[in-house]
Amino acid sequence: MSMAVTSGTAAEANPLGRPLFNPASVALVGASNDATRTTGRPLAFLRRSGFQGTVYPVNRSRAQVQDEQAWPALAALPEVPDQVFVMTPTDLVADTVQECVELGVGVVTVLADGFTESGNSGWARTRQLRKLIDGSATRIVGPSSLGVVNLRNGLMLTANAVFAEADPLVGDILAVSQSGSMIGALVSRGKALGVGFASLVSVGSEVDLSVGEICAATLDDPDIRGYALFLESISGAAILRRFAAAAAAAGRPVVAYKLGRSSAGAELAQSHTGALAGEEEVSAAFLADCGIARVRTLDGLIEGVSFARRVPTVPQRRAPRIGVVTSTGGGAAMVVDQLGVLGIDVQPPSAETFAKLAERGAPARAARIVDLTLAGAQYEVMRAALETLTQAREHDALIVVVGSSARLQPETAVRPIIELAGAGLPMAAFLAPDAPQALAALTAAGVPCFRTPESCADAVSAVFSRRLREVAVTTTGAAANGAQAAGTGGSRTTDHVVDENTAYQVLDAIGLPRAAAVVIDGDQVPELPFSYPVVAKVLSAEIPHKTDVGGVVLGIGDAEGLHQAMSSIRRNVASHRPELPRLPVLVEPMLSGLAEVLIGYRIDPEVGPIVLVAVGGELAEMYVDRSLRLAPVDLVTAREMIAEVRPLRVLEGFRRRPAADIDALARAIVSLSQLTQRPEVRELEVNPLLVRPRGHGVVAVDALVRISEPDPDAPLPEEVAP
Amino acid sequence: MSMAVTSGTAAEANPLGRPLFNPASVALVGASNDATRTTGRPLAFLRRSGFQGTVYPVNRSRAQVQDEQAWPALAALPEVPDQVFVMTPTDLVADTVQECVELGVGVVTVLADGFTESGNSGWARTRQLRKLIDGSATRIVGPSSLGVVNLRNGLMLTANAVFAEADPLVGDILAVSQSGSMIGALVSRGKALGVGFASLVSVGSEVDLSVGEICAATLDDPDIRGYALFLESISGAAILRRFAAAAAAAGRPVVAYKLGRSSAGAELAQSHTGALAGEEEVSAAFLADCGIARVRTLDGLIEGVSFARRVPTVPQRRAPRIGVVTSTGGGAAMVVDQLGVLGIDVQPPSAETFAKLAERGAPARAARIVDLTLAGAQYEVMRAALETLTQAREHDALIVVVGSSARLQPETAVRPIIELAGAGLPMAAFLAPDAPQALAALTAAGVPCFRTPESCADAVSAVFSRRLREVAVTTTGAAANGAQAAGTGGSRTTDHVVDENTAYQVLDAIGLPRAAAVVIDGDQVPELPFSYPVVAKVLSAEIPHKTDVGGVVLGIGDAEGLHQAMSSIRRNVASHRPELPRLPVLVEPMLSGLAEVLIGYRIDPEVGPIVLVAVGGELAEMYVDRSLRLAPVDLVTAREMIAEVRPLRVLEGFRRRPAADIDALARAIVSLSQLTQRPEVRELEVNPLLVRPRGHGVVAVDALVRISEPDPDAPLPEEVAP
Repeated sequence: MSMAVTSGTAAEANPLGRPLFNPASVALVGASNDATRTTGRPLAFLRRSGFQGTVYPVNRSRAQVQDEQAWPALAALPEVPDQVFVMTPTDLVADTVQECVELGVGVVTVLADGFTESGNSGWARTRQLRKLIDGSATRIVGPSSLGVVNLRNGLMLTANAVFAEADPLVGDILAVSQSGSMIGALVSRGKALGVGFASLVSVGSEVDLSVGEICAATLDDPDIRGYALFLESISGAAILRRFAAAAAAAGRPVVAYKLGRSSAGAELAQSHTGALAGEEEVSAAFLADCGIARVRTLDGLIEGVSFARRVPTVPQRRAPRIGVVTSTGGGAAMVVDQLGVLGIDVQPPSAETFAKLAERGAPARAARIVDLTLAGAQYEVMRAALETLTQAREHDALIVVVGSSARLQPETAVRPIIELAGAGLPMAAFLAPDAPQALAALTAAGVPCFRTPESCADAVSAVFSRRLREVAVTTTGAAANGAQAAGTGGSRTTDHVVDENTAYQVLDAIGLPRAAAVVIDGDQVPELPFSYPVVAKVLSAEIPHKTDVGGVVLGIGDAEGLHQAMSSIRRNVASHRPELPRLPVLVEPMLSGLAEVLIGYRIDPEVGPIVLVAVGGELAEMYVDRSLRLAPVDLVTAREMIAEVRPLRVLEGFRRRPAADIDALARAIVSLSQLTQRPEVRELEVNPLLVRPRGHGVVAVDALVRISEPDPDAPLPEEVAP
Repeated sequence: MSMAVTSGTAAEANPLGRPLFNPASVALVGASNDATRTTGRPLAFLRRSGFQGTVYPVNRSRAQVQDEQAWPALAALPEVPDQVFVMTPTDLVADTVQECVELGVGVVTVLADGFTESGNSGWARTRQLRKLIDGSATRIVGPSSLGVVNLRNGLMLTANAVFAEADPLVGDILAVSQSGSMIGALVSRGKALGVGFASLVSVGSEVDLSVGEICAATLDDPDIRGYALFLESISGAAILRRFAAAAAAAGRPVVAYKLGRSSAGAELAQSHTGALAGEEEVSAAFLADCGIARVRTLDGLIEGVSFARRVPTVPQRRAPRIGVVTSTGGGAAMVVDQLGVLGIDVQPPSAETFAKLAERGAPARAARIVDLTLAGAQYEVMRAALETLTQAREHDALIVVVGSSARLQPETAVRPIIELAGAGLPMAAFLAPDAPQALAALTAAGVPCFRTPESCADAVSAVFSRRLREVAVTTTGAAANGAQAAGTGGSRTTDHVVDENTAYQVLDAIGLPRAAAVVIDGDQVPELPFSYPVVAKVLSAEIPHKTDVGGVVLGIGDAEGLHQAMSSIRRNVASHRPELPRLPVLVEPMLSGLAEVLIGYRIDPEVGPIVLVAVGGELAEMYVDRSLRLAPVDLVTAREMIAEVRPLRVLEGFRRRPAADIDALARAIVSLSQLTQRPEVRELEVNPLLVRPRGHGVVAVDALVRISEPDPDAPLPEEVAP
């Protein structure tokens, strides 16, 4: 099978695929004789499902397990199993993994907990596992994994009780979950919605194989046509990103539900950027930039993959054109309303198309939606409407909302949807009444069908919010290096804030305009290379908020005033921070702009470099509006970011204010985002960046920069992370 | 039956109740012989359901309809029917209604459309209908009503196709919908979720009976224990509000789903208040102030009533304390996350309670939720946990999330929930897998059970967001007068903006501090009663945005400067608005505050007087944060409003800024909200209101006031509304 892939991780015939999903043999280490116990379930499930591979129960103290022969140890098996499911207590895991490495087992899936989530002792165990497999061909799923399931070959290598059922619905979606219990929830809910899965993996704490690498292992599996991810955090960001790009190239959508939308975040960084860019927004930007459709409803995750498959993942620089056709006004209104809440305004057909609809016997009052209520739920009417709208080519996708006929007479309004599903216009259906048979018929026919207006709007919005930006993968931070590289690339470093004058030199290096500045060390006021009035600020890396310690004097009119200001600043700072030495003062001209903007850059420990735009000024953190992207960004993206921050509309000119230099602001954002070329810069925030009238540029008048330096005494990031 | 009711509308033995829901006889005017046609369905449905009352098909041209005797006219019937369902074409409706009035029919339900939604001719028909019933005992449901259903007595007086089914699930909820098709969607979806309805009404265009009055007609119906409303708009606001208060007093919750959350609104008023207070926020404030739980998911509407019934509707001035117990970490995390998005932080039990849990065999790591995953899904564990948490009295409600055992072994974790449902702590359940039997068992046992994490969080949040403020019903505007009084009380008036000096007099009358001001008509600069610097502003009711026409000069230092400023203003205004005469100039002292706030008041055409707080200043409309309530408000509510506007946190003191006079701001909001006493004031916006340091008060430095005056030539509001 030929397929466009962009990464070595996703090469053809991925070596992980066979042991992980199609093992010829599996061993169950610690298999219990009691089929109802957690450690007894996998054997019972594998037998019930009729798995055709060889299954070896391994039990140190029993010769028989569930009426089958058991082996005392892996070494005693007649062959080396492709995959081993380790169900021993935590303390025995390392020995078993070592045995697997020695035998050359392909995949070890570990059920026990007590690793990354268990403090220092857990991290010690984690490092031990990683060391054991280092350089070997053995890979680990978990620990804390509830297992690996392949519904196509009966590989029920899981302790999740839901898989006790005999008749799963087999489909073409790979579900990968950071929550073990969710693989059971997904498979049972999918079955109720008529959505089948091909395989499901509980990744646990990802000490080795992360979500992205497990997904990538199926890129050469022709039966898998989409991915559903249940995420608690973004781990292995670079690998996930490469996988997502490869999946998009192969026409396989990735849909993700991610927890943490309301987490306040533990971050209390000194700089505003840290405080502003809460983890949720970073994740959201990351997923969107990866081309992953991020849903906000559980049903949207299950029902959304099929819709995503119908919509090409092309970089789209305009609002999606979603049309709605309905046989029920109220039902459609709910979807339209919810889409609007999510930022998508449903687009009406043209007057010409409304005229054609009337001609063809599907008359509807010209409005935002095509409401066929008056024409009635009739086959001919719905068919004519769908044909007409498909031919009109005015929409990127069509949502068909069907009323009571969906429950009672699916041959009227539902049948035409199935017939025209492949006609060229992506379609999704929402059924207003409970209509399980119509829902199943639509889903079986490949028409994405949603049970609630919220999941319908959610999935449509998520699918059309994918950006799939081609951001160059840099050498900076986590995004390049995957799960183990969180934080500072796995090496021992410390970060420190530099003083403002040094920060200005970083701005100079990336070509970001900033105020002229003179550093005065002594008491004497030198000749300044700019004219008064000026501003004087204490210069120290130790004082993040200069105004809080009386370290800033504005509007100084002459040399005498500057002399007084310097004395005043030093007196104030000495009283607040007596431990600091006598400090230099930075003097700049007083500048003004039409608006104050905050632009920020930092290397996020999870997703790598990000860039941020928000309202600037002293009260920046009072406002929630901001826009965030993976860095670097181009000018088009920078302009999109500016447009996303509502209060910055003032830049376009408001009432009688002149328009500001948005082009220069966009260029500044692009320059800032190029910090990916300087991996030692961990964080840079300009606040405020003064934006002047059009043609007059921007100028930074304050900056905070955090630099990392090698430090052999620093702890490894994984030692402090939990 | 004795019951606390607060309104005459909701008197005992409501005279509407019998003809509307328990008619001894009904007539079907325009009944078709074809049972599959819309006008044939009601007869077929009534026969299938076994309705025990007398049914009279009325058909001008047939002696028999669906093998039954038909009558040629209402006058030919052997008795006066209690309710008449009119299924004639639009043009024949008035004649039939007239006949009903003459006969003394209690309720006429009208199917035809072509009334309020059909422009001027429709409004003419509407007025005709209202005139026909004026002073009579006959009431109208509709037009555009799909009918009235009482599942308890088989009254299937509806054309909604879903009611063709023979086995509806009968429950204790009255569903009232402004969308006719939704009564079918609700009843079919409710059945799938195990939630039954007692009655359902499609209210149509509410030319007479509005949602509130129809609901109130069941306050003496002992079988109805809650209300589910599907709303497209708020109509008959005052009646709805009185009903909601009576329902709350009777312990019957009202849950509403309302469309229009994303509507941009048609409002392009001159003042910012109009632009800021989009219809959605007005509706949201109205419903919350009425004590109505406003849900945002369709499932939440169906599943939420039962939960609402368990939570007392008391005015609550603190965040709700919601606890979560679970046998599945991932499933619970979705609910916790979604609750957080909706503003509710799940509250952990105390350390003492965690210790008790461990003692009683339900050990859980101390965290935000009680996660029993490790202890396993066992009956004893879940029972001990629920008992302990009930006894601890640390929560207002408990959400129990059950994992795969809900599907496979409901006797373990699900049974204890049912057993302890009545133990004193309101409980709701969310089942992570698809578990229809456990869901049905919980629902049947009276435990609110949710199918998705989103509907669970939605309903819990909606129920705890009810305020049930006791706002005095005033004589002002729509809120006092119900559906027919929209806009200006049904009378002919015009609104006009007054000039700023007149606006200041309104502020004086309500005791809201404002800047001193002098009006200068001529060219001479008089002695001012305040010192320079001053600000000069053109004074005209015709110029809403003075800065837009060069009509403001700030920071004028002396009399000579003022003279020049007056000339400059008059020249600027003359060039922008040459049609205006030479205008006076208003002069005020230059004042400053710690912050600029916008406070607004207006009489909303739907819900009556409202009051609003937002960030002030020239860029007010760039920010979305604001808080809105029905007026009048008290000091406690005013303080809550200030706290809801995030950027106003700066008032509390920020970095080294002093704290502002929040008390004075709260008093100003209360004063403004007292405008309900002056019904001629339709709108008043102060922007900015300067808030000074604590103890130094607030001062308005600009105000926009709109006054209504009787105008015999003005159109009636209903003539312009559509």
